[in-house]
Amino acid sequence: MKIKKINSSQNTKIKSIIKLYKSSERIKKSLMIIEGYREISRSLIAKCELKEIFFCSYYADKKIIDFINDCNFTINECSKKVFDKISYRQNPDGILAISKIIKRKISDLEIKSNSTFLIIENIEKPGNLGNIIRTSDAAGVSGIILLNNKTDINNPNIIRASIGSFFSIPIINTNIDTFFDWAYYNNIKTFATSPSASVNYTDVNFNQSSAIIFGSEDKGLSDKIMNSSDHIISIPMLGQNDSLNVSSSASIILYECLRQKTL
Amino acid sequence: MKIKKINSSQNTKIKSIIKLYKSSERIKKSLMIIEGYREISRSLIAKCELKEIFFCSYYADKKIIDFINDCNFTINECSKKVFDKISYRQNPDGILAISKIIKRKISDLEIKSNSTFLIIENIEKPGNLGNIIRTSDAAGVSGIILLNNKTDINNPNIIRASIGSFFSIPIINTNIDTFFDWAYYNNIKTFATSPSASVNYTDVNFNQSSAIIFGSEDKGLSDKIMNSSDHIISIPMLGQNDSLNVSSSASIILYECLRQKTL
Repeated sequence: MKIKKINSSQNTKIKSIIKLYKSSERIKKSLMIIEGYREISRSLIAKCELKEIFFCSYYADKKIIDFINDCNFTINECSKKVFDKISYRQNPDGILAISKIIKRKISDLEIKSNSTFLIIENIEKPGNLGNIIRTSDAAGVSGIILLNNKTDINNPNIIRASIGSFFSIPIINTNIDTFFDWAYYNNIKTFATSPSASVNYTDVNFNQSSAIIFGSEDKGLSDKIMNSSDHIISIPMLGQNDSLNVSSSASIILYECLRQKTL
Repeated sequence: MKIKKINSSQNTKIKSIIKLYKSSERIKKSLMIIEGYREISRSLIAKCELKEIFFCSYYADKKIIDFINDCNFTINECSKKVFDKISYRQNPDGILAISKIIKRKISDLEIKSNSTFLIIENIEKPGNLGNIIRTSDAAGVSGIILLNNKTDINNPNIIRASIGSFFSIPIINTNIDTFFDWAYYNNIKTFATSPSASVNYTDVNFNQSSAIIFGSEDKGLSDKIMNSSDHIISIPMLGQNDSLNVSSSASIILYECLRQKTL
């Protein structure tokens, strides 16, 4: 372990981290920001290729100091003022890493006899996606597939809201045709969700390889997805509203899948 | 319908609305802010006592103009600049009301043979609570009871995140002893949730009057609640995390209650 001290926000490395908060810069450099001990530990288990580690002794507790001491990396030790510049958390724990972006293809996904996949078309809010990743990990989902996704999945807010599950579950960006081809050839049943469907989500069989497809809250699912899916299912809603938050809908259906699989 | 025009942010009414964004002021005046057509409509169905209506023709669509024209209230018509001062939304729809706070006691709750109640100890984030209210309404929950709640439930962010369900479902503040006395005398079974419990939430009977109790994400439930509850249940978690977002946990269990009740 070697230490380099950084006491100025004008340091080139600090300036380049701040630039990485822009999605365009992350894509151009193929790099992402991972903040927090839990997140960095998980990223190492997931064999993320870390490029740099930044550390601040003002915030760090013993487990982080131990981690730093055991590290083979050159550590950039920042003053509090400098670390506050690069941190995106309200309560930083004093460690932040820069890593290569993880690139995966849909064909990389491992499929078992009753795998559940979560599919989202046009996801909008990073916090929602992060929470969906967290719940998916807990519910034993085998992969998350984003269709027509216009947001950068390496957004630090997604990683934060997933509380580290971002690194435990494969997340794929692809298009609608590629997804349905993949599902068809792998005998994965596709379930589109829609508030107007007449089939209740508890009345279908999730104890088989299944892909559950959710749309954005504003627009729902596209006609192409509705027409291509094997089943269209809904969550009953007894109150006055005609929709649930997408993260709540995903929680409800993913845990119904798990319930059916463990009956 | 009478119209008063307000073109200055220095207007006394405008100043007093801005003050109402402070919880202490809402409590002192026993007033709350309701923004949006959907929310105001629902508050009227719930017999909220509206005090004032503020309107901005720059943002309002036809249904809001019709509503204003049919109104028995004196309407305060604001310039865009003034309305932007009092609005708390990113995309205002041009209508905002001031209403008396709704006051309810636990004894006001209606109990049926298999009513589900949602209980939360130490709720922290207004956005989480708002979304929990929204899901509870959809799942047919009969009431929400907040224990040891230190946040003001009339926070505009809660009303917004509930997308109007705030007015469809009774929300009660009380203490732990009063809650357990009420549950005992009304023969309502109490289910505390804890990640360390060995009983799976799908293995208990929710087809009876039930109160499901959730703790804060950081601290979980207090010993007093854990010791006083009839059952302690958990949601299985297969991944690396040891917790779910409280809003996701509530969605999963409330819909399991509904599933069991409609079998």
